[in-house]
Amino acid sequence: MARSEPARGMRDFLPEDVRRREYVIGVIARVYERYGFEPLETPAVENLDTLMGKYGDEGNQLIFKILKRGEHEASGQADLALRYDLTVPLARVMAHYQAKLPRLFKRYQIQPVWRADRPARGRFREFYQCDVDGVGSTSPVIEADLCAAVAEALTTLGFTDFVIRLNHRQLLTSLLAAAGVDTAKHGEALIALDKLDKIGPDGVAKELDARGIGGEASTALLEFFQPSVAESELDRLSGFVGDDAAGLAAVDNLRAIMALASATPAGGRIRIDPSLARGLSYYTGAIMEINVADLAGSLGGGGRYDNLVGMFLGQHIPACGFSLGLERILVVMGERGMFPPDLAVTPADVMVSVFDASDTVHAFRVATQLRDSGLRVLVYPDAEKMGKQIKYADARGIPFVAILGGDEIAAGTVTVKRLADQTQHTYDQSAAGAAILEALRQRG
Amino acid sequence: MARSEPARGMRDFLPEDVRRREYVIGVIARVYERYGFEPLETPAVENLDTLMGKYGDEGNQLIFKILKRGEHEASGQADLALRYDLTVPLARVMAHYQAKLPRLFKRYQIQPVWRADRPARGRFREFYQCDVDGVGSTSPVIEADLCAAVAEALTTLGFTDFVIRLNHRQLLTSLLAAAGVDTAKHGEALIALDKLDKIGPDGVAKELDARGIGGEASTALLEFFQPSVAESELDRLSGFVGDDAAGLAAVDNLRAIMALASATPAGGRIRIDPSLARGLSYYTGAIMEINVADLAGSLGGGGRYDNLVGMFLGQHIPACGFSLGLERILVVMGERGMFPPDLAVTPADVMVSVFDASDTVHAFRVATQLRDSGLRVLVYPDAEKMGKQIKYADARGIPFVAILGGDEIAAGTVTVKRLADQTQHTYDQSAAGAAILEALRQRG
Repeated sequence: MARSEPARGMRDFLPEDVRRREYVIGVIARVYERYGFEPLETPAVENLDTLMGKYGDEGNQLIFKILKRGEHEASGQADLALRYDLTVPLARVMAHYQAKLPRLFKRYQIQPVWRADRPARGRFREFYQCDVDGVGSTSPVIEADLCAAVAEALTTLGFTDFVIRLNHRQLLTSLLAAAGVDTAKHGEALIALDKLDKIGPDGVAKELDARGIGGEASTALLEFFQPSVAESELDRLSGFVGDDAAGLAAVDNLRAIMALASATPAGGRIRIDPSLARGLSYYTGAIMEINVADLAGSLGGGGRYDNLVGMFLGQHIPACGFSLGLERILVVMGERGMFPPDLAVTPADVMVSVFDASDTVHAFRVATQLRDSGLRVLVYPDAEKMGKQIKYADARGIPFVAILGGDEIAAGTVTVKRLADQTQHTYDQSAAGAAILEALRQRG
Repeated sequence: MARSEPARGMRDFLPEDVRRREYVIGVIARVYERYGFEPLETPAVENLDTLMGKYGDEGNQLIFKILKRGEHEASGQADLALRYDLTVPLARVMAHYQAKLPRLFKRYQIQPVWRADRPARGRFREFYQCDVDGVGSTSPVIEADLCAAVAEALTTLGFTDFVIRLNHRQLLTSLLAAAGVDTAKHGEALIALDKLDKIGPDGVAKELDARGIGGEASTALLEFFQPSVAESELDRLSGFVGDDAAGLAAVDNLRAIMALASATPAGGRIRIDPSLARGLSYYTGAIMEINVADLAGSLGGGGRYDNLVGMFLGQHIPACGFSLGLERILVVMGERGMFPPDLAVTPADVMVSVFDASDTVHAFRVATQLRDSGLRVLVYPDAEKMGKQIKYADARGIPFVAILGGDEIAAGTVTVKRLADQTQHTYDQSAAGAAILEALRQRG
């Protein structure tokens, strides 16, 4: 007997799960459309060389690789891989269809990605990303637009307490240099500083020391990177940057993004956070991450990646994107009870029961009529005892059962039983649909 | 520079493609819901042993296999695989969640599957199936229900000329035995008979001979399997079956399915076709396939598979399913111009232009107001020449451009230009949304 579990880190979604997922995806897609983003889909399977080298060493390790087909299968070589994010496929698409796509392209994409991470609570090997990206402009309008769109999506879903943390790769570089950290040690310093939330300044100081960054550099870093919610955070940071032109340009860029976003649903949501680093290696400018208080990890994040399209095209095309994690959103919404109550729908509005197997064709005829009036209708498949059929409808939450006995068939009528109060009425078959619809409406 | 093509046999879907796909998926899902089917989703990646041995030898060859992770990667061993169809995962789910799922479960599932087929015109390595299945009953109500649901889905999409071919695995076996074909040769006989449409009776006779089925058996088979559209086809076939009980039961089953389906949107669409065999090895009873005149191959197919769930559960649970192929439907709808004209939507209803970079925040403020009134709004990212901005909107089919010069900003107004006739009006910023919505409505 074959085992019946899904593969490790993968999940099956039963009807209630699917309806919740579809609800959230629908809200997000409709908001993205209101910002002028257009839908794109790419295949789950990419050429292996499309993905390798785009996500840093750790990313390379987590890519699922697919065996070559046919005679090469025995060699154990892989030539294909599962999509790891939605950004690299977008960069490939921008390069491949450059002539067909507009020079400024705003796209959204809501599809699964796969990562061979160690599964853990809330961490899966297949999960959905809901991405928005703006390609073809270096303007801070793009960043502000993305922040506005994701903020409106979350607000529409009912989130009231999220914060968009904002930082800039060039500002990070500038601050690390100003603190006296060797360029070669920047990556290590960021890994340590990334833990400020979790292990506090003393913990980070120890970690910096262990990584060979100590003394004045460590002290300066901890001063620069201290958490702050001040309005004037950018002024404070630009003070540390000194006269480093790239660092000052980064501060100006962040200032522009915040000013534009203030006129959108992202207004009041954005907080400058110098310790935000974002793992992916392709970011070049502003970086963003969304958090809520009761979730370790983020609801989503993104940033500017001006060099990625060029890796496929050999021509510079700037781009910036933001990705919401569907699973994280679902977890928080589930814990907080944020789903609309009418999502827990029943499989049907009415079940047509079967009194006698030889009369089943009449059940089908009435079911067709009821569907034509707009109802969701299930025909019970077997002429079992009426009590058993009604029990099934009740257990499934189906509110009405249509009964067709010999009398009803002869008279062209149908008896409709309302399970909530066990009342029943007999209608002309052509009038039953309207009566049930009306009763459903009154019930709300 | 990395190559930018999608992997072989895989496709990217640009916005217009996605909108067409979403439209068809939406129609099919809504119809399936009206028949009481509930949504299910399963992971793209399954354990390799879940899939192996379920699809016959050819199927085994076409499964995409995924390399083991970590230290085992170098060994070239595969332990995971990409979903090959939606039926085997359903059987696995029925076994795994038996306690949570109802005893009668009607589910639909619309997801991609992957097959390492040689790519050809209209044949892809990633394609979507739109499946409906009824689990837990052997009643012909299930088969008739499936035929009704797919017929209504196709009718709602605008198809008027499809035919559902219907046959039964037991009837096939009975006819082959009655013709005197050795049980061991049944598979070979079906492969030959499957070509009746393409190579005619003489061709099939030659092919049967080459496979060691000649003489009286070949003559009888060609008589039994001659194409017929007669109402009395089942009577004709039951004549050949003789007193074989399984064959006669199959004829009765097909008769019951046709009678029930006659009271549904599948009425008049079903034709008994003794030459229909269906490749997959898991079918045990009725088998179905949908065809239209101008498409080689089918729009979809299915059948009863009463033993598959048991392979995962060790307990007999009957089931029957029907799968529509999304890609085939899209190809025919594209060739026949069956998509609603308003699917070719523009990326936005209105584009807010940017006159002066320092005024961009006003553009954002007006864009937020316009979105709040229900419009889809794009903000142009760069303060380029107005002519260039308007040209972009026009090229993208965006009907209105909002212009905010110094005068408008000072007065709290916005000038709205209609690109179709180059007329423009100036509105209070708070009134512009309603005016544009009204103009869009009048345009239809």
